[in-house]
Amino acid sequence: MPKLKNDTLLKALLREPTPYTPIWIMRQAGRYLPEYNQTRLRAGSFLALCRDPDLATEVTLQPLARFPLDAAILFSDILTIPDAMGLGLSFQEGEGPRLERPLRNEWEVRDLTVPDPEDRLGYVLKAVEQTRKALDNEVPLIGFSGSPFTLACYMVEGGGSQDFFRLKTLLYRRPDLLHQILAKNAAAVSAYLQAQIRHGVQAVMIFDTWGGLLSHDAFHAFSLPYLRQVIAALPREWNGQRIPSIVFTKGGGQWLDSLADIGCDALGLDWTTDIGEARQRVGNRVALQGNLDPAVLFGAPSTVRQEVKRILDRYGPGPGHVFNLGHGISPQTPVESVAVLVESVHELSRRDH
Amino acid sequence: MPKLKNDTLLKALLREPTPYTPIWIMRQAGRYLPEYNQTRLRAGSFLALCRDPDLATEVTLQPLARFPLDAAILFSDILTIPDAMGLGLSFQEGEGPRLERPLRNEWEVRDLTVPDPEDRLGYVLKAVEQTRKALDNEVPLIGFSGSPFTLACYMVEGGGSQDFFRLKTLLYRRPDLLHQILAKNAAAVSAYLQAQIRHGVQAVMIFDTWGGLLSHDAFHAFSLPYLRQVIAALPREWNGQRIPSIVFTKGGGQWLDSLADIGCDALGLDWTTDIGEARQRVGNRVALQGNLDPAVLFGAPSTVRQEVKRILDRYGPGPGHVFNLGHGISPQTPVESVAVLVESVHELSRRDH
Repeated sequence: MPKLKNDTLLKALLREPTPYTPIWIMRQAGRYLPEYNQTRLRAGSFLALCRDPDLATEVTLQPLARFPLDAAILFSDILTIPDAMGLGLSFQEGEGPRLERPLRNEWEVRDLTVPDPEDRLGYVLKAVEQTRKALDNEVPLIGFSGSPFTLACYMVEGGGSQDFFRLKTLLYRRPDLLHQILAKNAAAVSAYLQAQIRHGVQAVMIFDTWGGLLSHDAFHAFSLPYLRQVIAALPREWNGQRIPSIVFTKGGGQWLDSLADIGCDALGLDWTTDIGEARQRVGNRVALQGNLDPAVLFGAPSTVRQEVKRILDRYGPGPGHVFNLGHGISPQTPVESVAVLVESVHELSRRDH
Repeated sequence: MPKLKNDTLLKALLREPTPYTPIWIMRQAGRYLPEYNQTRLRAGSFLALCRDPDLATEVTLQPLARFPLDAAILFSDILTIPDAMGLGLSFQEGEGPRLERPLRNEWEVRDLTVPDPEDRLGYVLKAVEQTRKALDNEVPLIGFSGSPFTLACYMVEGGGSQDFFRLKTLLYRRPDLLHQILAKNAAAVSAYLQAQIRHGVQAVMIFDTWGGLLSHDAFHAFSLPYLRQVIAALPREWNGQRIPSIVFTKGGGQWLDSLADIGCDALGLDWTTDIGEARQRVGNRVALQGNLDPAVLFGAPSTVRQEVKRILDRYGPGPGHVFNLGHGISPQTPVESVAVLVESVHELSRRDH
């Protein structure tokens, strides 16, 4: 195996010393980049872009050509799993994702099958391989999946929602059925991430985007145990390399103590959490990833720098921090702000290392 | 002054013993009630309903006729203040509020004036008086306002938003301008709540609905200090009666420790917070209000009862708890669930008192 030239991300996720704080950005290959929009136009749609390994590789590399980011992330969507399960994914322009055949009946839940990723998600695995090859060991490639609970939100609701009331009605009326869905999702997510690792991703991230909609107890009953299952099923190593895992429950700042015990290597933080307090709470159990408010990138360069410094200062010295936003980057973000962000993180963090 | 027949709410807010845990429900006079929808139809629109003291009184009393709730809440909207400031409020059916003249220029912020509630919000104060009269001292009447920050969100954005990016851009580009707006809002909210108290409300609640969108530091800079200002300006007593105050920052579960020190009597909790942990964190500083997930009311009666019991158990014995939902009740809620909710809270809590 040729050696990774920049392994700061992997080291930081494992709480090993690094010369500076590594940074990558959620949705770094995205609509704030003009070259991304051009490729997407060429592909015809977001979904076509996800399904074309050549174009997916192309957009994955675009932000790395502009900024000295410390990782690439697979270009895909969390809803590839429900799609592979036969629920029929589409994206309406400006409206977000839609599943044509959401789960509405008990027999649909019973008949739901765990897809074999090699068979049904080959296009993602091919994108993993091509992206790895194109990256030429410069930086690691992060794979990802939605969490079992977050996928269930879409599978029951049929699309995005402000409150996911249909999902919650199921949760309080038929918790047994929701647990059936979640068990299948956990198996599907595990198989999917395992396949991504076999095909070349060097770290994995699980997006529990909607876990924060749950009550304290419901989160601990319907999201957390299935996150733990997925993590437990991941190989700790592949080809002699540790494969670190990151779990990000948006809105889960109050549950960091529980999340730190599910076996993952790092926790993502949204911007509402003070990263210094979070570090005290999780101690040496996990690394932390985050957590700049994406809106800071609408500020002046001096503001971006100052807010970066604030987060680095709050985290404090020592290893175990991966810089990121607290949510995906906004399409309206000025590209220059991202340059300032990456440069500030690298420069200001050298002092602490 | 004739004595209030049911003063359990006021006592609980002041952490004095009560024979059971009092309950009221955010948006208890709302669209889940068929009689409310009829009155609203008669009024022509939501805004017309707010502006007609007779009809506002009528809908305020509707839920009390059905359920033995322990408080009434003034029927109004948090955007009456921006409207009184001249920003032009309207409600599009199914789309939420709109302000016709949002703050877009520096001079508009400079020219913003603090409205005299007696002059510009007389219809609200008249509704307070009439509702008080109609309540005939059965239960207390709660007055309310939006928080300075939450009002600013709408005033800058011009309406609701998923991420309030326009507000946040202002926050990171021109924090000085946002502070000017917030200072005026704090003065307006203070004057408004003072007027409501003079006209008869017996407790006040401040809805910081969007405070939870802020980063930890931004919340402490742009929402918290203005909440404190408003609380400090409230009279502790009126006509010899203590007027308790409740502050509710939705999504503010991580900031309860700071919120418990701003001088209010009680804090509202959304459903993501464990009320037992919250009680440990705030100690004897404030009472707690909440925090059932509104979605529980879509469950079976036995589920509603079980979830009520869970919250009562977590809060534990002793005074200082006001039961409520963690957010406004959903329009699709079955009316029967509300009956079960109120009955369960009263019955199950008698054991702990």
